[in-house]
Parts: sequence; C-alpha cells; structure tokens
Amino acid sequence: MFDCGNIAIIGGGSWATAIAKIVVGKTHRIGWYMRRDDRIEDFKRLGHNPAYLASVRFDINEIEFSSDINKIVQAYDTLIFVTPSPYLKNHLKKLKTRIRDKFIITAIKGIVPDENLVCSEYFHQVYDVPHENLACIGGPSHAEEVALDRLSYLTIGCTDQDKAKAFADILSGNFVKTKTSTDVLGIEYSSVLKNVYSIAAGICSGLKYGDNFQSVLMSNAVQEMSRLLKSVNPIERSIEDSVYLGDLLVTGYSNFSRNRTFGTMIGKGYSVKSAQIEMEMIAEGYFGTKCMKEINRHLHVNMPILDAVYNILYERINPQIEIKLLTDSFR
Amino acid sequence: MFDCGNIAIIGGGSWATAIAKIVVGKTHRIGWYMRRDDRIEDFKRLGHNPAYLASVRFDINEIEFSSDINKIVQAYDTLIFVTPSPYLKNHLKKLKTRIRDKFIITAIKGIVPDENLVCSEYFHQVYDVPHENLACIGGPSHAEEVALDRLSYLTIGCTDQDKAKAFADILSGNFVKTKTSTDVLGIEYSSVLKNVYSIAAGICSGLKYGDNFQSVLMSNAVQEMSRLLKSVNPIERSIEDSVYLGDLLVTGYSNFSRNRTFGTMIGKGYSVKSAQIEMEMIAEGYFGTKCMKEINRHLHVNMPILDAVYNILYERINPQIEIKLLTDSFR
Repeated sequence: MFDCGNIAIIGGGSWATAIAKIVVGKTHRIGWYMRRDDRIEDFKRLGHNPAYLASVRFDINEIEFSSDINKIVQAYDTLIFVTPSPYLKNHLKKLKTRIRDKFIITAIKGIVPDENLVCSEYFHQVYDVPHENLACIGGPSHAEEVALDRLSYLTIGCTDQDKAKAFADILSGNFVKTKTSTDVLGIEYSSVLKNVYSIAAGICSGLKYGDNFQSVLMSNAVQEMSRLLKSVNPIERSIEDSVYLGDLLVTGYSNFSRNRTFGTMIGKGYSVKSAQIEMEMIAEGYFGTKCMKEINRHLHVNMPILDAVYNILYERINPQIEIKLLTDSFR
Repeated sequence: MFDCGNIAIIGGGSWATAIAKIVVGKTHRIGWYMRRDDRIEDFKRLGHNPAYLASVRFDINEIEFSSDINKIVQAYDTLIFVTPSPYLKNHLKKLKTRIRDKFIITAIKGIVPDENLVCSEYFHQVYDVPHENLACIGGPSHAEEVALDRLSYLTIGCTDQDKAKAFADILSGNFVKTKTSTDVLGIEYSSVLKNVYSIAAGICSGLKYGDNFQSVLMSNAVQEMSRLLKSVNPIERSIEDSVYLGDLLVTGYSNFSRNRTFGTMIGKGYSVKSAQIEMEMIAEGYFGTKCMKEINRHLHVNMPILDAVYNILYERINPQIEIKLLTDSFR
C-alpha cells in the first residue's frame, strides 16, 4: 500500500482549513504554507484560522507553519494545493525546488487563467509531474459543513488507484466518506463547470424564473457537463455520481454560493462591474466561464448554458434576451 | 394528425385547475367534472376555483361544469384525469359508460392503492383502454408556478407519438414548453418515486444533515430511480431529462412540498400519526412508499432509499438509526 508520508497544505482559505482539520485529525502532524506571516502569527496566537472557519480549533503544536513555500515543499512528501486558481501560478513561480517526485493533490476548483488548463494538467505540462503523482479532491463540499462535522462525501481522483486509496483513507472518518476514481480530468472540469451553472441559476433567479425552470436548468446543465466531460476525457462514467451531479446541485441550489449570488445580481440588472464591487470579491465562476469558453473553441461541444453565461458576462448581452433564447434550446 | 376533439378535466384540485387554464386558453371550451355541486356553484359565481389557485380567472362561458362523471365522459373525446390517486377508483366506479375508445390522459402523480398499479396500467387492465389511447403528463410542475405563467416544461408520454404530439400542441404556449416521449410507465413511476425521495430529503433535513449530504441523497435517488425504471420498462432513456431528474429536483429541493414537510417532521421526531394530524392532510408519498415497496417485492431492485423511508414510516424504525445505515450504502 502506498504511503502518503508527511502531508502539507498549500493555501489558507476556508476549504484549505477544512481539509487541514480532517488531515491533522488523522496524522497529528501537518505542514501548512500560508502567504502572509501576520496570518500565521494570528493563527498561532488564537489557535484557529483568523480569517476563515474561526470555530475550528487546532492544536498548534501539530502544525508546522511557514510563509516560505520552498521550505514546505522540500520537507513534505504529499502536497495538497488549495489556493484560489487565479493565484496558483504566482505561488508556484516562487519554487526553487522540483516537485515532480511529490504526490500532488489539487483541491482547487478552477482553471489556471491564461493557460486555460485545469490544475492537474498545469502541474503535468509545466512542472513535469507524471500523471500517477497527480490527484484531485472532488465532491459536494461546502467547507463550512465539513468543518461543522456534517456528513460529507468526497471523491479522490488519481490514475494510480493505490495512491488514491491511500489518501482517501486519510480523509475518511465518521463525518467524511470517501471513494476513489480514475477520472481526474472529469472531476476537475466538472468542478469548474458547476460554478458556471451556478451563475446561470443565479441569473435565472434574478430574472424571476421559478423553481420549475431551475430544475430544468439543472437537468440540462448536467447533460451539458456530461457532453464536455466525454470530450475532454472519453471514459465510461456515471454523471449521476455525487462527484459530478451532487457537486453541481449543492452549488446550484445553494443560497450561500458566491457564484449564485453574483448571477442573481446580474439577473436583477447589475452590471458585471457593479456586482463585483458590491460583493467585494470576484466569483470564481466569472473566470471559469471565460476559460471554458476558450477551451471549447477547440472542442466544439454543444454548450448553450456556458455560451449564454459568457454572452451575458463578457459580451454584455441583455440577460433577459439571452436566457429567453436559452430556454428554446432546453428539453 | 390526430385530433384530440373535445377535452374535459376530471378533478378539481390545484393541478387540475392549472391544466384547465392552459387547455381552455387554447380551445376556449372544456368540460370539467368536479365531485361537489357547491364547489361548482361557487366557481361559477366567483369566476375562479373557490378552493385552489384562486388568482386564476376563468371565462365561465367556456366551461361546461358537471358533478355527473357519466355526462362528462360521454360528451368528451379526451379525458384528463387529475384526481388524487387514492380517489381515482371511487370516481371510476360511478362510470356507466365505456371509456376504452376515449383518449385518456393521466396527470395523476401516484399509484392506485390496493391495486399497486400506476394509473395507465389501471385503465388498461381494469377498463380495457388500449395502450395507444393512454397518455400521461410529466415534468417539473408546481401548479402554482404554472398558474402564475412561470415558464415550465411538460412532457407528454404516449406510445402513439401522433397522439402525444397532438396533445402537446394544445398545452404548448409562451409559458409552457412541451416535448413527447413513449415512456408512459417510466414517467408515471418516476412521479411516484420523487415523492418518496422528497420525504427522504425532509427526514434528513429534520435530522440536521446538511446541504452536502442532501446533494448526495439526490444523486443516489436518481440512480435508484433509474434502476427501478429499467426494471419496469426496459427502454433506452436519459435519466437526466427534466421529466425524470428535473421533477425529482423540484420536489426534493422545494420547501413547499407537502412530502418534504411531512418528512422533516418525521426527522424531527414526530410520529407518523402526529405529523399527519399537524399537517391536516396525508402526503401522497406516504402511500407511494408502501405501494412501491410492495411492487418491488416482486422486482427485487436495489432501492435502499425506498427501504429506509418504508422502515421509518411503516416499521417504526428510529429515523436516526435508519438514515445512518442508509448513508453507508451511498457513493
């Protein structure tokens, strides 16, 4: 059985904190890279992440913090990357040590901007990490619920099933159930697309479409997701599995999703810019929409929902008109 | 092209009223059987259904009301049955005229109790109606939203696609989009099962399972539905179509669903009896659970969610224990 060795977390947000909690609960020792020294100091002083999931307490003695990514990467065997996708490139640029022998797990739900690559492809193409050393974490997982010990199901994707199982065992517990999959690309792409569809759900809600229509939107979204996944990774998969459909539903039906809230404001008539200012942050699906649109320029998959969201966000087409057109394509 | 001829509605609830509104908007003439004369008188006086969807106005001159089912059945070519499934048998017992030459459309989401047959099978086996004269209406359709002109998608199932298309054309309009299907049995069974799964969603919500888990429950529910449908009607179908998945989602995620509310009370610790008294009505999925359980005694399909709901409602197993066991079967 593969041994994950020493495990480190790269990133300091809420999902990073939830994963750190699960891992350290099993291993009682982790490394943790965070960019900001002041955050690390506050974390040590308070015994919890000062900025995210403050209710989750940690035993500080079990964590080796560092704001030096090279120090962490050198000292640990398994690296879990949980930064926002737009910042991944900048973090990695600081690397002076090679990482292709590490076991790299991405829990990043997004695409590397400009490159238009999902994270595992980016690690593979730019950092020469072989596929068998690349894994991802997928599944319906509001970080807040995982932190609150609400039962959640995670899927570990890796072409090497031994490695997937070894890491799944570390995550498994009373409140986290895991399974494994070989579909790394499918899981990564679906976690990008669900944010796009969550924006679509928000737009339609803002336009006063009702629950009947939302369920038709989600049904068509999972079909569209299935078509794209068949194109990027043509393997046998059940799109109704919780890692695909479940992840889509938890985001699309959530009132706490930033992507859905962003979409709702667009549907209500806010401009993209004013919605972003109002939210004080940029919803990840905003970038995901552009990346997926560009990726699909080569794939030519029939993706009317993606196209509609793109037209609304980037081509300034009136949402009412664009969604009306979209409804004609639905079945 | 098949001609539906004169169309009559059998039943006086909210879904019957919503369908009547759509049909009479196209045909400007319908027959309408309601059991109670006082309701008919109030309807005529007020210009709307006194008990359901009171905001939907009708031109009374376009409707021939009768509390005599034989009068309506004799005079009309197409009969849309929209009674609650537990009362269908009693309505039909009053028939003195044969109905096997009529075009029978069931919009009933339920099973005929004791017989354990979906409605189309009941009409076929007991009233000799040939399959090509039997259709059903499926799809995600809160009656309230259809009545409020919120865009909805309905699917007309009939083995005779000419007839399905003819009736679909009558329903189609600015706010109702339709498609046709040959999968009458699949549509009927899925509309029974979604109520069972909606009770399950309520139970889990009452037990404080979170959104991550609800999405896993819905993912597993659609897989379970798919297995049952393959067994009762082994044809090619896309379970992600809105008539199956969409209908499941609109019910499972709705806070207005009676079945979900009933389940939530059970999850919170109410007994079945006290939940029913508190709600002043019996959720349709309560009967559906028993019927499906009995039907599956012969089919032997793997249906852990149905089994769990049955054990909780009919075998008085503690919901917390039963759902805990269920979570182990999920993927």
